[in-house]
Amino acid sequence: MREAFHDQLDGIFADLSDICGMVEVAVHEATKALMTGDVHTADQVISGDKAIDDARERVDDTSFQLLSLQQPVAGDLRMIVSALRMVSELERMGDLSVHVAKIARLRVPQVAVPEELRPTMGRMAEVAEDMVRRVRGIIIDRDVEAAIELGRDDEVMDQLRRRSFTELLSTDWQHGVEAAVDIALLGRYYERIADHSVSVANRVVFVVTGERPERD
Amino acid sequence: MREAFHDQLDGIFADLSDICGMVEVAVHEATKALMTGDVHTADQVISGDKAIDDARERVDDTSFQLLSLQQPVAGDLRMIVSALRMVSELERMGDLSVHVAKIARLRVPQVAVPEELRPTMGRMAEVAEDMVRRVRGIIIDRDVEAAIELGRDDEVMDQLRRRSFTELLSTDWQHGVEAAVDIALLGRYYERIADHSVSVANRVVFVVTGERPERD
Repeated sequence: MREAFHDQLDGIFADLSDICGMVEVAVHEATKALMTGDVHTADQVISGDKAIDDARERVDDTSFQLLSLQQPVAGDLRMIVSALRMVSELERMGDLSVHVAKIARLRVPQVAVPEELRPTMGRMAEVAEDMVRRVRGIIIDRDVEAAIELGRDDEVMDQLRRRSFTELLSTDWQHGVEAAVDIALLGRYYERIADHSVSVANRVVFVVTGERPERD
Repeated sequence: MREAFHDQLDGIFADLSDICGMVEVAVHEATKALMTGDVHTADQVISGDKAIDDARERVDDTSFQLLSLQQPVAGDLRMIVSALRMVSELERMGDLSVHVAKIARLRVPQVAVPEELRPTMGRMAEVAEDMVRRVRGIIIDRDVEAAIELGRDDEVMDQLRRRSFTELLSTDWQHGVEAAVDIALLGRYYERIADHSVSVANRVVFVVTGERPERD
């Protein structure tokens, strides 16, 4: 009985890592759509989000059932409560990828990101995707050290965001208001994906150590 | 014993409504700072966010304790799990108010919002604040009908956001890229406050009826 319960707990974490994998694909594909103005890829990210939402519901239902039927305490309870929170954040990261894809689609056949901004924006996208990939590993391995390291690397994203603003607000900006608004919002979306990654990683730390994760 | 437990459950909901009240003040004051370029008010919103964070931690701790010690089932379990999620969202709404205040402060002694955008942006702020106020009532009264109505009114916010983009992207925009970026981000922050309000209201529906809230 207890063993079946622990299998179910492990199953929730396996589901979380799968969802994280789906988010990684969503971030990657949304960026591809953005940088190439590819409407087909953008549409796939947008319609594909339903699979993430559905997977989230399954984790919600299973977690709720386990809480209700097994009445877990201590570490097991911590794990389920954390799973409920992690899955919310992962779903949100999927939504943010959809936002990126929607901006991409809105500008087709143009590319939303002007050429001189592409290095900075491309780097933001890479950092976000890399963080999501690392979070997946952190979930699978319950890797506290990697989780703490991820939190430190969040600073890179902040620097990139500041750089994008500097580039936007330079006096020789030639691309008008629409492109500027797109860049500001895109920067915000990638930054939020990074923030949620750190937050999910912190929850893994909480699961393993019982120490409260750093403030989101 | 059970009675003490239900008092504690009610206490959590009282805490949630208090936090919602703090968020309402934060939204109101952040908007005041934004519309008047008042650095003192902006600073108060920013430093005041710690009180919301601390209150959130208390709800987290109490909820976790109740889950652990009382091993609730059915409606009680639903209530505690929902409280954990609602308090995350309320904290986030506080953070978004801080973001508004930070943009206000960045532009002092100017006002970030150009005069012709003030009606639309002011209306967005009003709608957001009004939604937060109504959510507080919904939490206090567990008012399912009001919660469902709130979800419908979210459309008003979407319309205002679209209008702000139309105004931004009109050919006679004279305020440059910086103001446009501020407006885009401010619109996003108010929209997210509205989204979270709907989501918190949906969770009240779930607590009362057991029906899964609409997708966030």
